[in-house]
Formats: sequence, C-alpha cells, structure tokens
Amino acid sequence: MSESGAHEAANGLDRVIHEPARLLITTVLQSVSGADFVFLQNLSGLTKGNLSSHLNKLEQAGYVAITKTGAGRRARTWVELTGAGRAAAAEHWKHLDGLRALADAPDEPADHTEL
Amino acid sequence: MSESGAHEAANGLDRVIHEPARLLITTVLQSVSGADFVFLQNLSGLTKGNLSSHLNKLEQAGYVAITKTGAGRRARTWVELTGAGRAAAAEHWKHLDGLRALADAPDEPADHTEL
Repeated sequence: MSESGAHEAANGLDRVIHEPARLLITTVLQSVSGADFVFLQNLSGLTKGNLSSHLNKLEQAGYVAITKTGAGRRARTWVELTGAGRAAAAEHWKHLDGLRALADAPDEPADHTEL
Repeated sequence: MSESGAHEAANGLDRVIHEPARLLITTVLQSVSGADFVFLQNLSGLTKGNLSSHLNKLEQAGYVAITKTGAGRRARTWVELTGAGRAAAAEHWKHLDGLRALADAPDEPADHTEL
C-alpha cells in the first residue's frame, strides 16, 4: 500500500467510533434497525452510566438517535444508528480494512526487510 | 454472537495498540522483520516527535525493540516488533474480527429488531 493509502487508512479512522466500547456499540447497531438500552448493556458488559455516556457521545456526533418511551417499570430506551451513523460505521470498517491490508507488506523499497 | 463473545471482543482490544497511529505502526511491522524510522514516518505521515512518542509507548509496553546505529548523517533508527508485540498485534486483529462478526447480527431475542 502506498504512503497516501496508509495515511488515509489511519487518518480516516473516526475517533468517535474507534473507542473500543463505541466500536462495539456501533458495530452491533449496524446489524439491527435498533436495539434496547438493556440489550446493549448486556451485550457490552458496560455499566449503565458508561453506556449512557458513550451513547451521548455518539448522539452528539449525530451517529445515533435515542428514543425514550413509557414510565417507571415500563420505561424503555431505544437506540438506532442514524443515516450518518450507519455511513460512518461502514466507513470506519473500510479504513480498518485498509489498515489491515498494510499487514500484507507495504510497497516501500529496501529501508525495511520483508518477512 | 453471545454476550460473553461481545464482551471479550471489545474488552480484548489492546488500548496500547488500538490508538490509530499505533495500530498503523504495529500492523505495518507485522509484515516486515523490521523497518527504518524514516520509512515509518513517511508511511504514517506523523511528525518525528509524534512517531517517537508512539514508538516509546510501544517500547514501554514491550511490543517493539528500537536499535540506533551510526552517527550524524549516517545515524539510523531501526524498529522491530518483539515476539510479544507480534503476538499482541495478531491478537488485537483477532478481537477486531470478533467485533466485526457482531455486525452479522447478534444472537439476542426480541429486544432488538433485525434489519
């Protein structure tokens, strides 16, 4: 891969999405139209507070939409990727793929020794 | 993927390696036995200072070995993944693959709606 390809792959990684817990959340949400807060909490193993703060960051970035319904024991929080969030998650994995391609040997000449 | 699989995938991500620039550096080093500092600088687009600080973090974690040879204009800095670094980088991509599998629909019942 060329220098520019490597730059692009690394620089293209979206730091809002790249954080491990948010990478998990956005990746799971790619496969569903939406998910319940408790479902995401069970899947991620995050505390309620941590999951809420990660979801807030994703919401501020415009990547998820959070809908709260019901009250008391019937209260429910529903989370969906927005169009922008779905595009950003797909783009992020594309850049990760670009990075991974680097492991298949960069194009540079003799200032490094092939395996 | 089960809850424990998702936890493991996300929690297994090595934060020393996961930072975008260090993910680029370690991934490139996976495909070579070693690389010159300047080569890594060109490929990553990082400033000399930033690359040095990322390499120091990787060295402190025991993931890279840095060898300096020559002096003046012939000075050269050579960077190699250690055995631990090579294992950690491979493990990190394995966890990223595990995360990606989540995008193929988690196993959870009706508290989320399939696409």
